Amino acid sequence: MTDQRVYATYLIETPYPLEKAAEVMAGEQSTGTFIAVPGETPELKARHAAQVVSIEELDAVDSPSLPGVYLAPGMVKPVYRRARVKLSFPLHNFGPSLPNLLSTVAGNLYELREFSGLRLVDLELPEAFAARYKGPKFGIEGTRKLAGVYNRPLIGTIVKPSIGLPPADYGPLVRDLADAGLDFIKDDELCANPPAAPFEQRVRVVMEEIERAADRSGKKLMYAFNITGEIDEMKRNHDTVLNAGGTCVMVSVNSIGLPGVAYLREYTELPIHGHRNQWGAMTRSPLLGMSFTAYQKLYRMAGVDHLHTNGLDSKFTESNESVTQSIKDCLTPMLGGYTVMPVISSAQWAGSAIPTYKAVRSLDVIHLAGGGILAHPGGSAQGVRSMQQGWEAAVQGIDLNSYAESRPELQEAIRVFGNK
Amino acid sequence: MTDQRVYATYLIETPYPLEKAAEVMAGEQSTGTFIAVPGETPELKARHAAQVVSIEELDAVDSPSLPGVYLAPGMVKPVYRRARVKLSFPLHNFGPSLPNLLSTVAGNLYELREFSGLRLVDLELPEAFAARYKGPKFGIEGTRKLAGVYNRPLIGTIVKPSIGLPPADYGPLVRDLADAGLDFIKDDELCANPPAAPFEQRVRVVMEEIERAADRSGKKLMYAFNITGEIDEMKRNHDTVLNAGGTCVMVSVNSIGLPGVAYLREYTELPIHGHRNQWGAMTRSPLLGMSFTAYQKLYRMAGVDHLHTNGLDSKFTESNESVTQSIKDCLTPMLGGYTVMPVISSAQWAGSAIPTYKAVRSLDVIHLAGGGILAHPGGSAQGVRSMQQGWEAAVQGIDLNSYAESRPELQEAIRVFGNK
Repeated sequence: MTDQRVYATYLIETPYPLEKAAEVMAGEQSTGTFIAVPGETPELKARHAAQVVSIEELDAVDSPSLPGVYLAPGMVKPVYRRARVKLSFPLHNFGPSLPNLLSTVAGNLYELREFSGLRLVDLELPEAFAARYKGPKFGIEGTRKLAGVYNRPLIGTIVKPSIGLPPADYGPLVRDLADAGLDFIKDDELCANPPAAPFEQRVRVVMEEIERAADRSGKKLMYAFNITGEIDEMKRNHDTVLNAGGTCVMVSVNSIGLPGVAYLREYTELPIHGHRNQWGAMTRSPLLGMSFTAYQKLYRMAGVDHLHTNGLDSKFTESNESVTQSIKDCLTPMLGGYTVMPVISSAQWAGSAIPTYKAVRSLDVIHLAGGGILAHPGGSAQGVRSMQQGWEAAVQGIDLNSYAESRPELQEAIRVFGNK
Repeated sequence: MTDQRVYATYLIETPYPLEKAAEVMAGEQSTGTFIAVPGETPELKARHAAQVVSIEELDAVDSPSLPGVYLAPGMVKPVYRRARVKLSFPLHNFGPSLPNLLSTVAGNLYELREFSGLRLVDLELPEAFAARYKGPKFGIEGTRKLAGVYNRPLIGTIVKPSIGLPPADYGPLVRDLADAGLDFIKDDELCANPPAAPFEQRVRVVMEEIERAADRSGKKLMYAFNITGEIDEMKRNHDTVLNAGGTCVMVSVNSIGLPGVAYLREYTELPIHGHRNQWGAMTRSPLLGMSFTAYQKLYRMAGVDHLHTNGLDSKFTESNESVTQSIKDCLTPMLGGYTVMPVISSAQWAGSAIPTYKAVRSLDVIHLAGGGILAHPGGSAQGVRSMQQGWEAAVQGIDLNSYAESRPELQEAIRVFGNK
């Protein structure tokens, strides 16, 4: 471990010379002290200092992107230069620990007044992390096996118990969807264990319908139950799902943090569906926070099996370029081949398959559609079929309208959802 | 619990009419669905909907603060209005659960394309939260008792083991500080259990010096050992500190998340010193993320006993107004009187006591100085004494220079640090 280093790449904006600014970052997060400490030899300092690996100058702007930057006396109307800066940190400063990695590669950097912008855009982690964090327990392969779906995406939907449907009324919804041949349902991220719909009761009602439908069809729908909560509560809720025959648990990863996910990963006997709500706070300011490329590496290592990415042409602020990159990130193997299944959602329908496949060239995704399935005029079963047909057309490189000619489900989907 | 509600206040910026924008927020985070669900009655919807409590229009700007906002057809050169919006959420939608509260009051809001800015600025939580989360186990009173310090701030410093001082060399530093009459030391947030300075070894060396110094002086220095790590690791490290006679543990709260802190709070027999590194990512963009006022309520409920706030005139980007508000926030009782001790740091010295006391009128703070103590020309003991003298002058309302006339330690501090 002695010679291993962590590489972190940042996008910065600063009125100071880039070399100086990069040194401030490296100093703050490693050997920087306000005063020489007794015993602090040059050798010791060299062994523990973060190093500036590279600085790539980008554009410059006249006004700072973020407030709070400090202008030293004499700096009148400075130019704010942007650059891509790569630092390396000695692993022996903090060891292969995700929570302490965060304190090092992010830490106080965002508050440094030498910067009018600072964003962590990528991370390269040494092998020692793979030895400690085993990554997803099930991944793409394990998920496919449990869901019984191969050679195409898992088609899923989101149901909305958050509106307070009593569990008894919720059963028929699930029954309909399971009988429609759907592969996957995720809980609403707003609904974990609320007084209005207690978790155990929800699991009982849902799993009864899923098991019965599986008896009829031979295929068990994968339902991601939202177990987000305190540590012991997540364990209990996981056990409730497992004992009821469920095949997936879901958590809001930003609500429970990296140690919460890592703890659950050790404990779980089911795939972990990672919802990234609150992520916008970390990424929407272009020169602050973190890119998804860096972020998803952290949660993949902690052990999620699925991770939300948004979908193309969604109702959210994220650009299609960013969504495409996010899906590709999840599918890029890291540290010994960790794989994670991207979860595509928001304003999706059968036709979304075409640009999605074109952009990412993979079938290893969970494709969630709400209205695209539930609002299909022919009912949920036709909605599901239309989604599958969309992916068939995508893979075969056939134009959606041509493929729909002999397929009424897809025809109807195009008619109703095609002009959104 | 049926009638209890959570109130969340936001600062928003939007090109849409404010009423419409507020309704979008309320819908997204409660009963909003893309399609009417079977069984979804108006009564059910009313029982579970978030409500818009108030909208206070503020200024307007010509260009969006954040990218990604969607302009509907016909919206050419819109005005981006800012407002303070208060929503209320029915507690029975999610129950008194901090992780699920976050999914509700923050959740997907930051990514909604109707907004060019959205920031959570305050939270009001119902009593049910106090029943589940007991808040700080020790708080101000418990901390004072363990540290043996009354009627004045705890004076502390930060040592820098992150540069890789072997534990054996670290001992003399701690000895010197303990003998100097210092009340408090915090670990570097960069240093928890690194290969270069294993935790158990560090604790042994440090506590040996602290115990010996306590034998000499009768007062045991409080040392906040950084136990940040995975869940089981934090428990083990906590036990190591407890068994060695230590009186405080420290965690990087954003590294371990709310459930990590809540879990530790249940387990701990020592005060929890909460370091907020990475916080800048959540707050530095003025129209994104969260204000400290909202944030500190979450972590206080989860159970930290101390929480970092920065100090006045620090080396960070935060304004003095914001720092003052943050310190006051920590000292404002909530839910049955939870108290938490603000930790003031960064570029502090004896003279910092004057504006700090003027701004917050409280002695219930931990005041950390690095150079202000360690670089005092008379040595650490004089540095500590000068800090105490600064607070004496502040409380007595005496001008710093006058108070220094008969006090050489303070005189020297003013000479060396007074012109920073």
